[in-house]
Amino acid sequence: MAVNYDSKEYLETVDAYWRAANYLSVGTLFLMHNPLLRRELKPSDVKPKPIGHWGTIVPQNFIYAHLNRVIKKYNVNMFYIEGSGHGGQVMVNNSYLDGSYTEIYPEITQDEAGMAKLFKHFSFPGGTASHAAPETPGSLHEGGELGYSLSHGVGAILDNPDQIAAVEIGDGEAETGPLAASWFSDKFINPIKDGAVLPILQINGFKISNPTILARMSDEELTKYFEGMGWKPYFVSAYNGEGFDGYKDTMEIHEEMAKTMDAAIEDILAIQKHARETGDDSMPQWPMVILRAPKGWTGPKKDLDGNPIENSFRAHQIPIPVAQDDMEHKDMLINWLKSYKPEELFDENGAPVAKVTANTPEGNKRMAMNPITNGGLDPKPLVMPDYRKYAVDVQGHGVVKKQDMIEWGKYLDEMFKLNPDNFRGFGPDESKSNRLYAVLDNDKRQWMEDIHEPNDEDLARQGRMIDSQLSEHQAEGWLEGYTLTGRHGFFATYESFGRVVDSMLTQHLKWMRKAKEQYWRHDYPALNFVDTSTVFQQDHNGYTHQDPGLLTHLYEKERADLVKEYLPADTNELLAVSDKAFNDRECINVFVTSKHPRLQWFSIDEATNIVNHGLGYVDWASTDQGAEPDVVFVSAGTEPTEEALAAIDILHDNFPELKIRYINVVEIMKLMTPDKNAEGLTDEEFDRYFTADKPVIFAWHGFRDMIQSLFFDRHNHNVHIHSYQENGDITTPFDMRVLNELDRFHLAKDAILSVPGYEQKAAAFVNEMDNMVDKHNHYIRTEGKDLPEVEDWTWKGLK
Amino acid sequence: MAVNYDSKEYLETVDAYWRAANYLSVGTLFLMHNPLLRRELKPSDVKPKPIGHWGTIVPQNFIYAHLNRVIKKYNVNMFYIEGSGHGGQVMVNNSYLDGSYTEIYPEITQDEAGMAKLFKHFSFPGGTASHAAPETPGSLHEGGELGYSLSHGVGAILDNPDQIAAVEIGDGEAETGPLAASWFSDKFINPIKDGAVLPILQINGFKISNPTILARMSDEELTKYFEGMGWKPYFVSAYNGEGFDGYKDTMEIHEEMAKTMDAAIEDILAIQKHARETGDDSMPQWPMVILRAPKGWTGPKKDLDGNPIENSFRAHQIPIPVAQDDMEHKDMLINWLKSYKPEELFDENGAPVAKVTANTPEGNKRMAMNPITNGGLDPKPLVMPDYRKYAVDVQGHGVVKKQDMIEWGKYLDEMFKLNPDNFRGFGPDESKSNRLYAVLDNDKRQWMEDIHEPNDEDLARQGRMIDSQLSEHQAEGWLEGYTLTGRHGFFATYESFGRVVDSMLTQHLKWMRKAKEQYWRHDYPALNFVDTSTVFQQDHNGYTHQDPGLLTHLYEKERADLVKEYLPADTNELLAVSDKAFNDRECINVFVTSKHPRLQWFSIDEATNIVNHGLGYVDWASTDQGAEPDVVFVSAGTEPTEEALAAIDILHDNFPELKIRYINVVEIMKLMTPDKNAEGLTDEEFDRYFTADKPVIFAWHGFRDMIQSLFFDRHNHNVHIHSYQENGDITTPFDMRVLNELDRFHLAKDAILSVPGYEQKAAAFVNEMDNMVDKHNHYIRTEGKDLPEVEDWTWKGLK
Ligand SMILES: Cc1ncc(C[n+]2csc(CCOP(=O)(O)OP(=O)(O)O)c2C)c(N)n1
Ligand SMILES: Cc1ncc(C[n+]2csc(CCOP(=O)(O)OP(=O)(O)O)c2C)c(N)n1
Ligand SMILES: [Mg+2]
Ligand SMILES: [Mg+2]
Repeated sequence: MAVNYDSKEYLETVDAYWRAANYLSVGTLFLMHNPLLRRELKPSDVKPKPIGHWGTIVPQNFIYAHLNRVIKKYNVNMFYIEGSGHGGQVMVNNSYLDGSYTEIYPEITQDEAGMAKLFKHFSFPGGTASHAAPETPGSLHEGGELGYSLSHGVGAILDNPDQIAAVEIGDGEAETGPLAASWFSDKFINPIKDGAVLPILQINGFKISNPTILARMSDEELTKYFEGMGWKPYFVSAYNGEGFDGYKDTMEIHEEMAKTMDAAIEDILAIQKHARETGDDSMPQWPMVILRAPKGWTGPKKDLDGNPIENSFRAHQIPIPVAQDDMEHKDMLINWLKSYKPEELFDENGAPVAKVTANTPEGNKRMAMNPITNGGLDPKPLVMPDYRKYAVDVQGHGVVKKQDMIEWGKYLDEMFKLNPDNFRGFGPDESKSNRLYAVLDNDKRQWMEDIHEPNDEDLARQGRMIDSQLSEHQAEGWLEGYTLTGRHGFFATYESFGRVVDSMLTQHLKWMRKAKEQYWRHDYPALNFVDTSTVFQQDHNGYTHQDPGLLTHLYEKERADLVKEYLPADTNELLAVSDKAFNDRECINVFVTSKHPRLQWFSIDEATNIVNHGLGYVDWASTDQGAEPDVVFVSAGTEPTEEALAAIDILHDNFPELKIRYINVVEIMKLMTPDKNAEGLTDEEFDRYFTADKPVIFAWHGFRDMIQSLFFDRHNHNVHIHSYQENGDITTPFDMRVLNELDRFHLAKDAILSVPGYEQKAAAFVNEMDNMVDKHNHYIRTEGKDLPEVEDWTWKGLK
Repeated sequence: MAVNYDSKEYLETVDAYWRAANYLSVGTLFLMHNPLLRRELKPSDVKPKPIGHWGTIVPQNFIYAHLNRVIKKYNVNMFYIEGSGHGGQVMVNNSYLDGSYTEIYPEITQDEAGMAKLFKHFSFPGGTASHAAPETPGSLHEGGELGYSLSHGVGAILDNPDQIAAVEIGDGEAETGPLAASWFSDKFINPIKDGAVLPILQINGFKISNPTILARMSDEELTKYFEGMGWKPYFVSAYNGEGFDGYKDTMEIHEEMAKTMDAAIEDILAIQKHARETGDDSMPQWPMVILRAPKGWTGPKKDLDGNPIENSFRAHQIPIPVAQDDMEHKDMLINWLKSYKPEELFDENGAPVAKVTANTPEGNKRMAMNPITNGGLDPKPLVMPDYRKYAVDVQGHGVVKKQDMIEWGKYLDEMFKLNPDNFRGFGPDESKSNRLYAVLDNDKRQWMEDIHEPNDEDLARQGRMIDSQLSEHQAEGWLEGYTLTGRHGFFATYESFGRVVDSMLTQHLKWMRKAKEQYWRHDYPALNFVDTSTVFQQDHNGYTHQDPGLLTHLYEKERADLVKEYLPADTNELLAVSDKAFNDRECINVFVTSKHPRLQWFSIDEATNIVNHGLGYVDWASTDQGAEPDVVFVSAGTEPTEEALAAIDILHDNFPELKIRYINVVEIMKLMTPDKNAEGLTDEEFDRYFTADKPVIFAWHGFRDMIQSLFFDRHNHNVHIHSYQENGDITTPFDMRVLNELDRFHLAKDAILSVPGYEQKAAAFVNEMDNMVDKHNHYIRTEGKDLPEVEDWTWKGLK
């Protein structure tokens, strides 16, 4: 029998569904027992410390109910992103109503006992988070740190043509930078090969304790704002007039919302049909919905002082003072709960009645069960190119110069070809600057606005890179959405401006960690974060562009299961790392790599070997074969490696008897102890590489504290760390090393002075090293370029 | 004789001025000698490696020239912010033309020799940065990390009623999150007591290698976008038609620009006049200017392959391949330079001719000499309240509970009263959540949109806090602009979301560091960054809201002259820190403080003492008087201190003979060695506090690596760090400590096991500690709150 989804009768089921969700939402905040108030409310029924958010809930339940309706009416695939975020009940309780919560958590049955557990568990120690967290069915976005909902939604529907991301956005959230920039996402969605996003802006008027900017904008202003950016806004309002003159009749609002949602969905379907049937993928005007409804809708009207709660900031968290040991105002709670008429909504066992469940979709059409929200629709590992095909012929060691990012681009280009639907690159307008030429030329960048060649270059409506918005937040947010839905990709950025989104990486790590703890969650592909244009060569820009601190930022969380940090010293190591890391799961891979011409050190076999172990003893750069070394050189990173090897070269020339060992480190977190990193070096292994007490000259790309931390629990504390010391400038590449005492002259001097017995023998040598630094300083300031003996230096091999 | 600034003649001087600036801008990129091409161009005249940005320059010079004109015409006070940023020549060369550069750098004379130096110095090792850096006259914003120009401009004009910030914004920059959110700044500018901002959006069509989103929006769409947000956009276009159909006649564009600038300035003056005369400070519609002009305007048209440079992304950096050892195409450079007709612009000595200087303002009206850009118009130290007035009466130690942020709010309220025009607080909608009640009630929050009490609260058009936009980027950007112009303030934020802007703090630090090196730069008041709602109590939100890593982020730069990190353990320490830190200069102060009810430990005298030294031995919590301790407890932070003292209490009850020392650390960077922190502890002092080898139980608010780093170069490595271990959840306050083994039971157990001789004696005790942890775990999961013996614990004193 065909259901008439537009009928008054059907809208009454929507309303019943909504009231049921609202009832549950209040219950989850306050109750632990007696969930349906079928007996008198006792203090022990109430939580000791009700915690959570109320204000955002009812408008969201309203949206959710109407999304259910259009899913059923149009049979579309949809999922829900909760932007304003801090209302975890929404997704928990709506999924409870449609049965999916019970399918995932069988102990939370659809009856009175299950409901009591559902309530108690929420926002309770050891229980369900107060946000739409990893434990929440159907969630792929938490919204703890506000601002990324739309980027996540868009990332999820790229290359998923038959999915619609319904992204609820808070009017407070819309004031954040990341969210404000993410409205430009419409310029990057292809109507043929991507799905659609339906932003639903919840203008409830308030945030924590302030009104919102968007709420005080008129409909006309909002229309301009969104139309200006290319959207087609539809309005629904619960208010009679301007926002403070009372509300419309509820069924009237339902009707308005139903009609509006129909129009929005029909727009999306029409856009896609037209584009897919005609092949015309020009940029459409995508619909969006603006819902004006009061914060704290349907909740308590006034607080004890007579100040408004509903339609005020006061509705944000727990609006009334009722708790286990504060039952004076329990009637406020009881009346509130009863206002939803639970007796009409739940049967005698406590299960939702048919009138409520009439508005729930079936099976995987339920938003909470849409597989896209649990690791993706059809997650596949990457088809990997043969990385050896792209190897640089090193012709000895340290003779040939190459630009690692250019070489890598060729490898990535094949990766794009082999994975045409589930691999993407993202960036903030830097892919060309970062030398991914092969990728740009062949795979193009997705861009839906007009393209004017030859003024423009490498743009296409169906490009595979997305780097045409200058926004690290968007690039990272899109990539997160893309990988959280089972696809693969990378974000390549200037190292320093990776920092702009370091808190997003923290949030992604937190998400992965908690998701891993859910038995029912599938895992995610690695998120690849590529830091290039690094601190050690930023000659177009200087000091503002110099910051290698992302390494410590992620390291210090000491979650080696979730973070891997790679510092390949040359192209072949970069290729070997890629082969290892790109198909990794459930982690953030940081790549620190150079885009400038640099000496190439390792054959592809050597590189593979070092990368497999995370680090390696390099025999051709060591003179300690079979003996204890006098000094151990270690380097991690492109420029540190060049300087370490150049220092060894100098030392060897001057002190051929000196027993030098050289260790190349690619995966820095391998140096962690096994209790913090299951793959970390044991103390024995650590001593084998670094000795227990010999001087270690550590040339390091990042800040000093990270290496101090890595050595802290080891035997050998005789480590001399040469690293970035927050000394930067607009200067030559080599001078950046000198400024930070990471250059060959400082390294060689420090090394020889640290070997017992050389205090006197090395006096002349030390003097020479100092002279070289002086000579350098003078030369670059007059000539504007590096010393020829530095620029032209190559590795000549040890005797 | 009155000048007619609207005449054709005057506009010709504007044009001459503009061409002179353009000439210099090309010269600074390429030349080191022979700046006026008065002899044949030799390789040695050209830089070895021309570096810098071209694309943005000419439209900016055009803007600058027309700003000069309106300054002269209307006699207004204006300064320039270069948002697209990467075109340092603009401000360097315009200030050279108006003489201010030479006043500041007398060796850069206004003649041929000076010009050669000017050219060579730019973007040269050890020379002038390629951005509008601290060494650039008139700059208060660098624009290395793009996105903050408008926030900085607005921060600067708050409480500066007679200043206009002319903020040039790149069309690429406008795609970033921070910039997109900063358009909402218009909701926060009071036309009576604040100055004005004039955003000038430079739509040159491109960014690094992509077109821009805003460039491909039509005038109609742009109008909607900006009008929607409340601005009144004015358009000027250099194009004949749609952007790719050639350009208008230059004088026609000048005329358009002049008329438009007049209209914009007249709007501003009219708005201010009306508001100031009538007292009507309702929100005006502020003007803004949108200039469409090609990237690389007036530069080389085509590259060697025949692809367009002008009006294309190819103009971004150095557009043609000419360098000292690459002179094949030197004619491209010569023709380009000569196209500006330098012979008409510079006299025989190389000084700008009268026709050029006719368009420069005089004295401090010159944007480069506006004192607002050099430490502020009339910078004053804060008038400080007597912090002792706000002291908590601790009645013994650890007995009374208070909420530090509530108490602090009362002190800050007086600070606002005492400094009515030069002290402000900023925040992302969290001031109420962060308990600054007294400030909100009395000093209000500035908000220019409608105010609807009682639904709204604590808003006023002339409020002193600005926290009504949910944007960390705006709060931080405004505060930076405010302090860079000599005023004082703080940004209070949830600790975890301070991370959203940690890269902004890095940039601010970099700015201060380089500014300090300029003899002519005045210094800046401290920027106070208040982290509250910390990791150890985030029970409404949980894991996403837990991140204390800002401490390492700033620490690891090891610039103790520019960063101070304070972790007061209670209200009195917080007050004493405020008294010390608020009037500090040229640094970032981080305050980590609690907003929840917490035990109060130190009398105001004790607190003052500890804060003065950065740390202190606490006799009433130590039993080692006059003897070597068996174990040293150290804590930094509110919850670590409570747990350390509770652990001491437990240990003392069980092992009264144990010699315990307790050290309270407030200023954590005091533990740095004197070579990195002039005020750091010497090794001797360090040993005196922490001993050379006794077990140190360190209860620490942040991540472990920072303490490892602080101890690395010290004698005592026997430190047991209890810190945040990236274990979070929505749980009770005490459970957060248990999860991270920072609770009293873990501390006490670890302490006793680390004292030699207690291995056996302590067996029962250790068992009891484990049992307490188990008991806790069970209790909170059933009862939803902390154990009464934990919640009710107070310090009872040592025997
Ligand atoms: C980046 C960030 N800054 C601050 C907060 C603190 N915060 C939590 S909820 C909230 C207000 C959200 O308002 P809105 O988006 O309107 O949501 P709703 O009204 O639906 O609750 C704020 C500021 C946060 N979660 N994230
Ligand atoms: C946050 C940040 N991300 C990336 C960059 C790298 N970057 C430097 S210039 C630039 C393009 C700027 O374009 P636009 O603002 O249009 O400036 P203009 O065209 O005037 O040069 C980019 C992406 C940066 N400086 N800052
Ligand atoms: Mg809201
Ligand atoms: Mg541009």
